[in-house]
Amino acid sequence: MKKIKQIFYLGIKGSNSFLAASLSAGNKVKLSGLASFEEIFRSVEKESSAAGILPLENSLSGSIYEIYDLLTDSKTFITAETEVRINHALMQKERTGLQKIRYCLSHPEVFRQCRRFFSDNPSIETVPVADTASAAKMLKELGPDTACVANPAAAAVNNLRIKKEHLEDNRNNYSRFITVGRKLKQHGNKISLMFNLKHVPGSLYKALSPYARLGLNLTKIESRPIPGRLWEYLFYVDFELNNGKHGFDEIITAMKMLTKNLKVLGRYDKYDKIKNS
Amino acid sequence: MKKIKQIFYLGIKGSNSFLAASLSAGNKVKLSGLASFEEIFRSVEKESSAAGILPLENSLSGSIYEIYDLLTDSKTFITAETEVRINHALMQKERTGLQKIRYCLSHPEVFRQCRRFFSDNPSIETVPVADTASAAKMLKELGPDTACVANPAAAAVNNLRIKKEHLEDNRNNYSRFITVGRKLKQHGNKISLMFNLKHVPGSLYKALSPYARLGLNLTKIESRPIPGRLWEYLFYVDFELNNGKHGFDEIITAMKMLTKNLKVLGRYDKYDKIKNS
Repeated sequence: MKKIKQIFYLGIKGSNSFLAASLSAGNKVKLSGLASFEEIFRSVEKESSAAGILPLENSLSGSIYEIYDLLTDSKTFITAETEVRINHALMQKERTGLQKIRYCLSHPEVFRQCRRFFSDNPSIETVPVADTASAAKMLKELGPDTACVANPAAAAVNNLRIKKEHLEDNRNNYSRFITVGRKLKQHGNKISLMFNLKHVPGSLYKALSPYARLGLNLTKIESRPIPGRLWEYLFYVDFELNNGKHGFDEIITAMKMLTKNLKVLGRYDKYDKIKNS
Repeated sequence: MKKIKQIFYLGIKGSNSFLAASLSAGNKVKLSGLASFEEIFRSVEKESSAAGILPLENSLSGSIYEIYDLLTDSKTFITAETEVRINHALMQKERTGLQKIRYCLSHPEVFRQCRRFFSDNPSIETVPVADTASAAKMLKELGPDTACVANPAAAAVNNLRIKKEHLEDNRNNYSRFITVGRKLKQHGNKISLMFNLKHVPGSLYKALSPYARLGLNLTKIESRPIPGRLWEYLFYVDFELNNGKHGFDEIITAMKMLTKNLKVLGRYDKYDKIKNS
């Protein structure tokens, strides 16, 4: 496998994808922000020494089908996964008392996830902006009565002081990011697949029989209606290979006989533990 | 079943949930906006003649686990479902040429979903606000060089003119809303369940055997890791009853023997067709 020299991520320095890229990448890898998920896929397709990092699911808001769609249509594969715990941190240019903060910039969804903090501090007016990394960047130009909520990487990048971490109401808030590259890996204990099934009783049951027979652990299964095709469903499945006892080829051959349009989305090592941000 | 006199929805008049509530509700039903999903559940629990309408999944962004969590912890059940096609519409106070529009207000996610339109019209500056309904409301106080992107109901509510419909890049963008009420319905051909399974090979395969045996159609299956409990998964399943041939009680009894912590989330009639907004 060619050495990765560059990782593309969504947004600007300090975005959540930037944070995930920073936590995953080695020291000598260049991180480059792009404006859309699609541009990330197009850039990775062009450059064999590049990878892209993308959010695939969140513990509160579920799978992001848009990424699955782009992955399906692209010539890239999942080569790694990582999980990052969300940390909505309040930050300022110079640390002051909470009562001195009059405005707070962030993404609207962040304010929604931090309802308790803002209802406990009603004197702080929330100001919606396009994304958290832009909020942190804007803060540099604003007065001491304005704060923002962003991730700790955004504070580091913009030289801001963190006043309070984890404003979010629900601490079980983490995102799973995938790394994509041009080559399907030949090793790794975790596999991601997608396939279609006819919408007839028992079709899924039959399609899962090889996993039961070979004793393989499914770690994800998700159905998705195919728009405009009422009687067919798309499935996303992740599973773990069984210490090499049952091979990759064996399960793929079995699955191809039981499903339609099977595609291997990637092979990679299962993440060890959730990373704190 | 008691007659529904009031429906609670998220946000203000013109929000996407307001639109879904308007499309679902009869004429004499009062629609009341609330500030959070949680308040909707609490309000429905208190009032037997009230219902709540909530977004459960979107064709691009997937299931909203936050709603599943609130549903799981509440004493309410799904009593109906409806699907609404997203229509990101450009609207103005007075219709002008596109070239006269200098600013456009909307939610950041809406701008992301309408990238093509805004990159084709670079003279329009996008201004993020907290939600689309607020954007439409704010427009009433602003000059003729400012437009917003919101749903058509927001135009009607705020007496705005629609300049262009469906700015979104991907037309396969629709949301599934559920109605929740205090009573589990005794009729309806669609059932939503949740349950736990031990994370051992074959457990899901076994749990699906009653559907295959009874010839019932699964319309959704989704696994979700339980945070902090690495070896257990939560499953969400929707299925259709088979013209009354196999009863509700039969399948629930079978499933209880094969799963842990089974909960019936609701019983309702399958939606007929996607509603246009």
